[in-house]
Amino acid sequence: MSSKRFERHNIAKLAGYVPGEQPFDAPVTKLNTNESPYPTSPKVQDAIANFAIEGLRRYPQPTADRFRATAASVHQVARENVIATRGGDELLRLLLTTFVDPGACVGMTDPTYSLYPILTAIQDALVTSIPLEADWSLPHDFSSVITAHQCQLTFIVNPHAPSGRLIDQETLRMLASEIDGILVIDEAYVDFVSDEAHDLTQLAVNSDNIVLLRTLSKGYGLAGLRVGYGIGPEHLIEPMLHKTRDSYNLDAISQQLAEVALADQAYAKSVWERVRLSRTDLCRDLQALGLQVFASESNFLLATVPPECPLSAKALYEGLKARHILVRYFSHDRLQDKLRITVGTDQENAHLRHHLAALMQSGSVSTPT
Amino acid sequence: MSSKRFERHNIAKLAGYVPGEQPFDAPVTKLNTNESPYPTSPKVQDAIANFAIEGLRRYPQPTADRFRATAASVHQVARENVIATRGGDELLRLLLTTFVDPGACVGMTDPTYSLYPILTAIQDALVTSIPLEADWSLPHDFSSVITAHQCQLTFIVNPHAPSGRLIDQETLRMLASEIDGILVIDEAYVDFVSDEAHDLTQLAVNSDNIVLLRTLSKGYGLAGLRVGYGIGPEHLIEPMLHKTRDSYNLDAISQQLAEVALADQAYAKSVWERVRLSRTDLCRDLQALGLQVFASESNFLLATVPPECPLSAKALYEGLKARHILVRYFSHDRLQDKLRITVGTDQENAHLRHHLAALMQSGSVSTPT
Repeated sequence: MSSKRFERHNIAKLAGYVPGEQPFDAPVTKLNTNESPYPTSPKVQDAIANFAIEGLRRYPQPTADRFRATAASVHQVARENVIATRGGDELLRLLLTTFVDPGACVGMTDPTYSLYPILTAIQDALVTSIPLEADWSLPHDFSSVITAHQCQLTFIVNPHAPSGRLIDQETLRMLASEIDGILVIDEAYVDFVSDEAHDLTQLAVNSDNIVLLRTLSKGYGLAGLRVGYGIGPEHLIEPMLHKTRDSYNLDAISQQLAEVALADQAYAKSVWERVRLSRTDLCRDLQALGLQVFASESNFLLATVPPECPLSAKALYEGLKARHILVRYFSHDRLQDKLRITVGTDQENAHLRHHLAALMQSGSVSTPT
Repeated sequence: MSSKRFERHNIAKLAGYVPGEQPFDAPVTKLNTNESPYPTSPKVQDAIANFAIEGLRRYPQPTADRFRATAASVHQVARENVIATRGGDELLRLLLTTFVDPGACVGMTDPTYSLYPILTAIQDALVTSIPLEADWSLPHDFSSVITAHQCQLTFIVNPHAPSGRLIDQETLRMLASEIDGILVIDEAYVDFVSDEAHDLTQLAVNSDNIVLLRTLSKGYGLAGLRVGYGIGPEHLIEPMLHKTRDSYNLDAISQQLAEVALADQAYAKSVWERVRLSRTDLCRDLQALGLQVFASESNFLLATVPPECPLSAKALYEGLKARHILVRYFSHDRLQDKLRITVGTDQENAHLRHHLAALMQSGSVSTPT
């Protein structure tokens, strides 16, 4: 073991990102990481069955052009407005690498997606964290704080995680026009928004400084495939596509399966509608149990455990885990009385409700014998 | 289009990496990017056929632990000594991100793998480039120059690209002990080394400052899958594995197929042996045509076109391309009279030899009618 430290200072002091629990051994009801409760399009299975290993011998098409063309067609933008990435996370990293200098500020809300401050620290940039209002809306002085800190880039997750709140198009357009840096709108959960008129793609591609993040992990049942993409004006997409991106960031299989899944919009939309309906039912069920639930436009619900409940949110999380049901608990100061629950199948949601009710009634987290 | 520039200064002035030509339309004899002439293990096809889309609904195992365990077993090291990456390129980037400060120096030979200086520029670090001797060996003062520039990291590709020359184990051990920074030995082509006793894995894992790069792109016929890995002491592997790596850098399919391919060592070794035999034959054939060929321990040959040849190396490259045969030509000052030719199947090699002979004889690059 070395006595010398080789890590850069910012890396040495960094605590890495800890993903939500991913058990691979025991079967669990998994409502903690916002994956789709339904498999991806059946056409993806056909594509796998027809994939020949001969196609793996050569390097893949470097820029995933067929996938990008499909995405461009779906969103009615040009292929030059799209970059395909290894999950949304790669796009976040590329945005920081390409546009944010070490020592500069990166804006974000508090709370937000917990990966943003970690990727910012890897770039040795500084976090400008702005608390949300009590109802999870942006504070009125958000853009002036961003401007005062000269943030080169600002992350907004919309619908917001972990609350599920949606910021409307006009507010975002104003925000982008008021700030000097790039506005990244992380639309990881946008497929589950009820209002089909909510669509920022034309705003982004015609803007100076807006990049949208999309992913196939949630809405397309493909978290395991690691494919996402960015949409924005060409002057922001181009340097990531041709300079900072790893030369072959998407493999040949992922490119093909992602294209098939994205092209099957009819199947995807049917899944999103099912999730929205289940979200309404689950919200009502949780409220009936005495929990306060924030109205969500995403595929998860943020539930507050009221003070009069004999068990805390953390105890309920642990009690559910002992019953092989995973939900998400955050030790963040504003989230300590809350659980984030992914909308599952109706069967999974009923299973959760049953055990949650039992736990709340018994007032004890001990496992049933 | 924006009048404002958002790109960082180092990115704005950067010319991105240009991969070797990858035609996806017309059939070509492709001897330009050192891919395997043979498909990967047939067991990989079985694994594809048995892959169910249900497995894609969930996030993949974040650190590719099964693949890492298989690699550790193959190399007789611990799993903690291995990181799995999206091709070797991702490992190169992670090494720079984790261990090299902006403004610091990164050592490399000249010529070398052309991606190194580009990734170094993205990290906003400085290139310390040290010319190789005429026979492609390291100059005697290599380590003292590296030390004088306080290089935090040094890249050596071994066997060397584009010459195919192998540096022996003792020279590398000495070099690592003489320098203060990290020595990255890029073993992308090590599977094709004739001497089976050449093995640096124990040296690396017991060192303070050596990381080996391995890839499945060449030796395992899986360039399209984008899987590589690093081997080194735990204090160098750990921060890349748990801090700077994208949270889920390898998808579920890639992890499984890579594990199957790597585990089938018998098949892989049979391919390497076939390539070595073809390399000997191709070398002899090229020499018979009057080319000078450097002895290669890799899956490619560097051939010098002598001054008396009526066509230059560049003209031969273009003439072959007109005949749908791709080899690699570099406009680098020391390589302008050379072609880098990937060893293909015996049929592909014979096809190349035939057309090369015809071109050299005719003295004209015009396509045959």
